This record gives sequence, structure tokens and C-alpha cells, in this order.
Amino acid sequence: MRIAILGVGLIGGSIGLAARQRADASVCGYDPDAGVRAKALELGVIDSDAADIASAVADAEVVFVAAPVGALRETVRAALEAAGPECVVSDVGSTKRVVLDASADERFIGGHPLAGAETAGVDHARADLFDGATWYLTPAQGSTAGVLYERLHRLLTTIGARPTAIDAEAHDRLLACVSHLPHVLANLLVAQASGALADDQPLRLPAVGPSFRDATRVAGSNSAVWTDIYRSNAPALLAAMDDLDARLEQVREWLTADDAEAIAAWNERARSDHEALLGAGLLGGPVRELRASVPNRPGVIAEIALALGKAGVNIQDMALAPSEDNRQGVIALWIRGEEGSDRAQELIAGLGFPVARA
Amino acid sequence: MRIAILGVGLIGGSIGLAARQRADASVCGYDPDAGVRAKALELGVIDSDAADIASAVADAEVVFVAAPVGALRETVRAALEAAGPECVVSDVGSTKRVVLDASADERFIGGHPLAGAETAGVDHARADLFDGATWYLTPAQGSTAGVLYERLHRLLTTIGARPTAIDAEAHDRLLACVSHLPHVLANLLVAQASGALADDQPLRLPAVGPSFRDATRVAGSNSAVWTDIYRSNAPALLAAMDDLDARLEQVREWLTADDAEAIAAWNERARSDHEALLGAGLLGGPVRELRASVPNRPGVIAEIALALGKAGVNIQDMALAPSEDNRQGVIALWIRGEEGSDRAQELIAGLGFPVARA
Repeated sequence: MRIAILGVGLIGGSIGLAARQRADASVCGYDPDAGVRAKALELGVIDSDAADIASAVADAEVVFVAAPVGALRETVRAALEAAGPECVVSDVGSTKRVVLDASADERFIGGHPLAGAETAGVDHARADLFDGATWYLTPAQGSTAGVLYERLHRLLTTIGARPTAIDAEAHDRLLACVSHLPHVLANLLVAQASGALADDQPLRLPAVGPSFRDATRVAGSNSAVWTDIYRSNAPALLAAMDDLDARLEQVREWLTADDAEAIAAWNERARSDHEALLGAGLLGGPVRELRASVPNRPGVIAEIALALGKAGVNIQDMALAPSEDNRQGVIALWIRGEEGSDRAQELIAGLGFPVARA
Repeated sequence: MRIAILGVGLIGGSIGLAARQRADASVCGYDPDAGVRAKALELGVIDSDAADIASAVADAEVVFVAAPVGALRETVRAALEAAGPECVVSDVGSTKRVVLDASADERFIGGHPLAGAETAGVDHARADLFDGATWYLTPAQGSTAGVLYERLHRLLTTIGARPTAIDAEAHDRLLACVSHLPHVLANLLVAQASGALADDQPLRLPAVGPSFRDATRVAGSNSAVWTDIYRSNAPALLAAMDDLDARLEQVREWLTADDAEAIAAWNERARSDHEALLGAGLLGGPVRELRASVPNRPGVIAEIALALGKAGVNIQDMALAPSEDNRQGVIALWIRGEEGSDRAQELIAGLGFPVARA
């Protein structure tokens, strides 16, 4: 199979590697940066390179446009112009509205793999980047049964991904909720906290709860990438913000009325929603959270992780909240299942660290 | 020194242990639950127990009210009624507005240690719980120089905490920003995502970005505790929500106008705010983030943590984002300083895991 990749970064490069190694494909790469093309050749990410889109696409059966969101639309357009009538053209952009026009062309099927970071370059390309990852495909109505869809679907499965068809609009709404809005809120929370600290006598930020640290971890993510993402998904993001506004207004009413029952019921719904979402998102049953108090010194994480590893207990997720002087802290561990979490609790207690089910 | 503790849970119990061990204090404990009192005696958390507030407080020089927020006001009032004229009464509630009335009494000084979880019981009491922890004190104007403030301050220092005087209102505003609002948003984000998933064909939640998982980690926190916290800090929380609204409106305008420059500038400010907040909150210089791709199997965290621990590189914070099939994932590590993070990067690369500065 002949594949063209337009934009050879982490995602494009990983597609190249995986397609070469697993689908026995011949991969031609184009990138506006000649240095990147040379690097991709050197790393074996592509078989050949092309200095322009038309040459790269000429003989291709599948084209992946892996350009930054800002350059996506024009690159897709150029690819469709250059591609033959039997060629399928897809992209990997994180919002699908921006390439909706292209769907008028039956050869185009939008795509979005949930894998990788947008910032890392071809140096970090890996053949296994998409193993088990959801890869959204947004085919236009009616084209899902076509030979082109099947070819793309089979190729993605071969390189390890899980292609999942979704309406383009639903995709953008979903991503607005689970990614773009959390990024917006992270930015707003740090701005607000900075303002609150500036308002008073210059307060030193205390050892704030993990809630703030977690919620603001992605504040100010790579501006070049995120400015484009926000802009490209503006309609869905604005709708999500409107929805948030309405929900905030509701909470405001309960607080103003001091309605304890409504607040408690709302919080309980959040708990069950959260559990349902986690259960749906992470395969294989519920995850339990343990919290252990540990001294914050080199080696203590290793000690715990090693004990659990030896016992075959896998740590699903982990968060460390150091105390202000870094002498101690609380480590939260998410372990799958009753049995695993009970075993983990036992092991951690056995190491002498106070530990409790959160 | 004679100390009374009203409410012997994790916080009250830890004060008792620390005061007995480090300040050579004699501690009398009251708790409405006789079983808790018996347990506290058994664990050596208190020297003696009392079946009512008046008996517990009778001879005390320092009284700590460590009751749940919902019972805080009445317990403080009862303590002040029973306490002698030279006794200082304090509390450990997470909002200070609720005990503002009590400040009319010169013997009362509000307090809030940033340590521990509200849910765990006396079983988890530890003498070192407050080591290095900020302990906010909200004395009424004019009383800060008094003998009672000095006694309380010295006791808190002796048990390891760092007492910091702050205006009660500023305290509540700060906590609304860095704790209560993030909890509200976590609840709203899960409700929104649940709604979005229910709207469409029943979608399985994909392996969402760490932004959503982090931002919603505290969704639906213990309703008994949090309903009271939200209600007790309603004015500051409502103000923080109004402020958030105004900031959301600003972002909405930029998105609607597709103002790339303003969006990028806003995102850059968030980045520098975030760095400034982290720098202020964690002592000793900037923390660098590394991201490594790792197979998600037992022992892999141990392997990395052990290598870093052996080299004396301390992991400041850590977050694991498993892929959907749990076969691989990205681990983010926060390491203090250039030298430490360079060394960590080297060590992780040496273990064969792709790793990059985030």
C-alpha cells in the first residue's frame, strides 16, 4: 500500500513508522520544513520524501494530513486536488468542523487519533503510539460503507488503533467538553488566583489542595497549538461555555437560598456521574482510590511502587501532593478492583505508611 | 499546658498526639460519639475524656474546636461560654466567616490548618500531620499582640506548623479560589460530560485527555463535608463564581471575534501565572515537567522511581495517563531545578523510555 503523510511530526511520523512496520506500506512524506523531511528519512519514518504536496500524493492510496490545525484546511484542499479518484484522504486534527467543507468530496474522511501530544516532533515518533487508542473517523453520511472507508479502517486497525465512526459535530462537542473547556477553565483559575493574591497583601500561595493543582495543570499549554484548537472549535466551545454558565447559575441559586438538600443532591449526582465516566473510560471495572501519607524523600515512591509491582498490583494512576516544606505529602493511588486495592492497602500499610480508602 | 479538644477526628486527634508528644501537654478530649472518645483514649491521642463540652473545657488554657463545619458555630459558642477568662479558644474549620461572630470575644482566634483530609477519623491521627503546614490564624483586629495569640502561636509552632495571620475575609476568598471553586467546576464538568454523552448515541467516553481527568478528580467529594463547606463559604464562593463569569465572558468575546492575538496573549498570561503560582507554592525554585512514554505494567513506575531515588533526584509530583487499553501510557514527572530534571531525563532515557521536557 502506498501512503502519503503531509506533515511529519509526532503523529505523522508515528503513522509512517507503524504503517511501514506493520502494514508493509511504502510511505512518502512531505513537510514544509526540509530539515524535518531529512530527519524523518534518517529515522526510517518514511521511505521517501517529497518537496511538495502534489508529488507526495501523486500515487498514494491513502493520504494522512497531519498538519497543525491552523494549516489543516488548506493542506487538505491541496491533497484532494492532487489525489487520484481512488485515493482516500484523511486528517488527524483535533476538531473536525474545520475540515467539514472537505466532506463534500467523497474521498475525504476526517480523523482524530486520541494519542500523543501535539508538541513533540518526529524525534519521538513511535510505531506503537496508537496501540489501543480510539481513532475517531467522521465520514460524511452515506460514505461509511464505501471501499475508501474500509481501506482506511483496515489500515488503522493494522497499525493498532481502534477506529470509531462519529458524527463530526458530536465529536467536536465531546472534545469541547472533555478537553477544550477544561483547558479554558485551567487558564481562568490561575488568572483568578493570581488576581486574588495580588488584591491582598502579597500572600504566598499556600500548599493548596490537590483540586487546584490538578485543575490548573494544563494552564497555558503550548500557545501555538492551543490558540488554533480554541479557534477551530469555537462554536462547540462557546456552546459548552453557555451550558456551563447555566449550570453555574443553578448552583448560584442553591447557594443563595442556602438549599442544603439541593447542594448535597447535586454533589451526589457528581459523584455517580464521575464514577460512571471513569468506569466507562477505563476498561475493566471501577477504580479505587487510596491515600497514603508518606515522607517526601527520594525513593519513597519507588518503595511503594515496587512493593505493588512485585505483588502484581498495577497502579492505574497516581498523584502526589507535597506539603509546603516538602518533608511529607499525601500520595493518591488509583487501583483497579476491590481485590487489587485491598492488596495495595495492605502492602502500603505493611511498609509503615498510614493509608486509607479515599 | 492544659488543652481541650472538641471533636476528636483526624485533625483533633493529631493535635492531641502532637501536643502530648511535643509540647508535653495534658489533653482532654470531647466528642459527641462515646466510641470515638474511647478509641482516642486507647490510641493515646488524649490523656482524659469528657462527656460534655463544659467539663472538657473547665481547666483548659487552649481549646481547639475541631467539629465539622455544620456544628462549628454552636460548638465554639459553647466552648466560649465554658472557658475561663484566660483561655484561648480556636477552631480548625475550612472557612472563617462562619465563626466571625465569635471574634467579638477577645478569647477567640479562628484557625485553619492546611493539612489532612476531613473524612478520615481518629484512627489516622498522626503527631507529624502538621509538620511544615501553613496554619492560618484569623485574629480580630487588635488582638494579635495579646498573650492569648502568643500562646496559641507558640503551641502551633511547637507541634510543627507554621502559623500565618490572615484577615478572615481574605482567607475565605483565597480558599474559594484555590479549593471551593475548583470543586464546583469538577462537579459541573462531569455533569456536562455525562449530558453530552447521553445526548448522542450512547458514546463510550474515550481515553480523554489528562485535562479532564485531572480537573474532575475531586468531583462528588464527600457530600456530608462539602455541602457544609459550600454553604459556609457561600458569599466568597459566589463572588468567585461572578469573577469567573466575567472572565468567561471575555474569552467568549475573543472566540466570537476569532481574535487569535488576544487568545494567544491570554494563554501566555495563563502560562506565566501558572509558573508564578507554582513557584510561589512550592519552595526552592522552579519545577520542570518531564513526560515519558511507558508501558502500563506492574513495576514500571517503580523502575523509574527507583532509578531517580538512587540518584538522589526527588520526584516533586507525578501523574500517570494510561491509554485506553492500559497497555501503555504517559507519565508526567515534576522535578525541581535544571540539574535534577536533566539528570532525571538522562536516567529515564537510559531505562529505554522515550522522554522529553514538556
